[in-house]
Amino acid sequence: MDSSRAAAEALDAADPLAGFRARFAGTEDDGQERLLYLDGNSLGRMPLETPAALARVVETEWADGLIGSWSTWIEQATRIGDALAAGVLGAGPGEVLISDSTSVNLYKLLVAGADARPGRDVLVCCADDFPTDRYLVAGVAAARGMTVREVPADIDEGLDPAVLAAALDDRVAVVVLSSVAYRSGALTDVPAVTRLVRDAGGLVLWDLSHAAGAVAVDLAGSGADLAVGCTYKYLNGGPGAPAFLYVRRALQEQLRQPIWGWFGQRDQFAMGPEYDPAPGIERFGVGTPPVLAMTAVEVGARLVAEAGIDRLAAKGRALTELTVELADEWLVPHGITLASPRDAVRRGSHVTLAHPAAWQLTQALIDRQVVPDYRTPDRVRLGPAPLYTRFVDVWDAMDRFRVVLTSGEFERYPAELTRVT
Amino acid sequence: MDSSRAAAEALDAADPLAGFRARFAGTEDDGQERLLYLDGNSLGRMPLETPAALARVVETEWADGLIGSWSTWIEQATRIGDALAAGVLGAGPGEVLISDSTSVNLYKLLVAGADARPGRDVLVCCADDFPTDRYLVAGVAAARGMTVREVPADIDEGLDPAVLAAALDDRVAVVVLSSVAYRSGALTDVPAVTRLVRDAGGLVLWDLSHAAGAVAVDLAGSGADLAVGCTYKYLNGGPGAPAFLYVRRALQEQLRQPIWGWFGQRDQFAMGPEYDPAPGIERFGVGTPPVLAMTAVEVGARLVAEAGIDRLAAKGRALTELTVELADEWLVPHGITLASPRDAVRRGSHVTLAHPAAWQLTQALIDRQVVPDYRTPDRVRLGPAPLYTRFVDVWDAMDRFRVVLTSGEFERYPAELTRVT
Repeated sequence: MDSSRAAAEALDAADPLAGFRARFAGTEDDGQERLLYLDGNSLGRMPLETPAALARVVETEWADGLIGSWSTWIEQATRIGDALAAGVLGAGPGEVLISDSTSVNLYKLLVAGADARPGRDVLVCCADDFPTDRYLVAGVAAARGMTVREVPADIDEGLDPAVLAAALDDRVAVVVLSSVAYRSGALTDVPAVTRLVRDAGGLVLWDLSHAAGAVAVDLAGSGADLAVGCTYKYLNGGPGAPAFLYVRRALQEQLRQPIWGWFGQRDQFAMGPEYDPAPGIERFGVGTPPVLAMTAVEVGARLVAEAGIDRLAAKGRALTELTVELADEWLVPHGITLASPRDAVRRGSHVTLAHPAAWQLTQALIDRQVVPDYRTPDRVRLGPAPLYTRFVDVWDAMDRFRVVLTSGEFERYPAELTRVT
Repeated sequence: MDSSRAAAEALDAADPLAGFRARFAGTEDDGQERLLYLDGNSLGRMPLETPAALARVVETEWADGLIGSWSTWIEQATRIGDALAAGVLGAGPGEVLISDSTSVNLYKLLVAGADARPGRDVLVCCADDFPTDRYLVAGVAAARGMTVREVPADIDEGLDPAVLAAALDDRVAVVVLSSVAYRSGALTDVPAVTRLVRDAGGLVLWDLSHAAGAVAVDLAGSGADLAVGCTYKYLNGGPGAPAFLYVRRALQEQLRQPIWGWFGQRDQFAMGPEYDPAPGIERFGVGTPPVLAMTAVEVGARLVAEAGIDRLAAKGRALTELTVELADEWLVPHGITLASPRDAVRRGSHVTLAHPAAWQLTQALIDRQVVPDYRTPDRVRLGPAPLYTRFVDVWDAMDRFRVVLTSGEFERYPAELTRVT
């Protein structure tokens, strides 16, 4: 390969998504960008349209329209859901809702799914999944007297469907899995796993947090039943932005989520005496949705849809491919190892590198204006979000990584772990 | 009484809170204000400081600080909680958390409370409580095989503690009640009811949605165990703003909420294998909190604290007193009846009037630039939020109400109920 900066510049020149970069804050091009942000998979950048959208909602709809603006806001959760469904998730209208946090949505669909499989007493999750997913499964199992089966996954290569298959039987009610592993970026084969679990009579609940906006997700085509995901990563909805949930249309009427709030009620403003869940995806709503936060989600979701998920996924693969190639050439000789699948089609849009001093390296990189993510126990995670990251950003970041590593300057940083976000 | 507009003007001239009005959007005083907003108990007005606070968070902390800003944001939920505790709720530091929606918080504390009273199989709620409270109780009871006792309340006068007392026994685990009735504004005697339920060995979970920021709430002094509430009404946090929850400090370690998300985890970024709830109020958190929405909550909460809850409550009583007096004089002779307690100390900060054509009257009032709230089945609810509503606003609104009612112009509006928010 050609590991010159000129080669990276050539990739940028040929990038059909290059124009989207200028629509995000902090991307002004003054020749050499100072900050190289490779953490869009933790918190995406701010779309430049977001402040104006927020100002419109706050200073016009709220300040002037007051309570009357609910005639507009009431549709927001399904309108954004439909946009995500069509542009990002491969789902149909009325199948996606913006609601609550990813964790609360996981809880709702996990309980709803377990209720829909009476007589089955096992929940399955992946031992290497993101903490909130594992904790949620443990909590629901504890409350219901169910058993948890934690399926092992390779920390770098992800979940082997054959390993999962061995854990499936007629006791399994719901399987919770991430389609992109939060640490390694390894992809799970969503259609294959969905088939496996369905053949065993269970339901899969997909966590798409590290997938949505970065890899092509085809919920309808893969036969997925249930999914949730985050909007503050590749969807650029802002810190702590409300999450999404998906329930296949044919399944909606059969499911009932456990938190019976008035935003899940049919004809909610009649304020009837009994809870009677709304007929469609709205039944998975709970309380009054946060309008300001959802406004930022809408801007982010529409940008991703406009870019096109197939183009984003292709660029994500190319960016991570460049990351891996430069790591092989510049870092591996100095003690770094690749902690993600080597084959780009088996990865999401981030790459993880392992080194015993990962936490020190992370601190040193941040001081050099490169923002990765530290992940336990010894991982540096690099997430070049395809919507606004250039190939030269990856090149420059890896170049600084090489300096930090080979100069030994990372050794000046404390090895003891302090707060990591 | 002196029912002249001059008398209302005199009350405004003597109002120690008069200066706060200018700190809200839409209150510019051009002699005769067009819009008379009496729905601050559904959606509070926008504080003028809110857009700048949002812009700072969005355009500086998010756009520039990116993931590093979590070092600030991570404290937001407890920082605002502490401000609410001290300034609005009469609670101590570390007892209040901003989190999720009111409905989700109700669910978490209801389940946690029921778990803390093993062997008890009854949940109690009020038959006239806000729908989401009743639905939540029904849902939790259904999931756990518990029984619901719905205690009747007088639709106008609220809950009689003696009626509640008759429903309490050693089967009752948790009682869910609103401290201010959403329809009539009737106050429940929080200390007396808390004592009753505690003496019976149960826990009370207070919904303070219509109280917080409008009446003096003394959670510590009343011995309350659990509470939740809304921030988009009298706290002016914006549409669908995140809610608060309160757990008495001595009870926190004994309780465990059911939705085991990573924001409830001790030392969450260690991402340990097992869920281990945080030691304090943070254990009642779930997912990543919505930073933008919470920013608006903080502005609103600080304004209320600055005004002082005792002064707000006193003004709220005076405003509703004027409303009732003018209704008696101008509306009652034409078929309106008071549907709230007549004694001001038994009311929150809103007053409800009953009329068979309440929905038509509501529509007519809105066309006359008076914004009340329609409530089933035949109620017009008037909520003159004390932080920004003038006595002349109440006078003018009641004057227009008199015209709408006595002219018969309300009869031109459709009687059939359409969407109400």
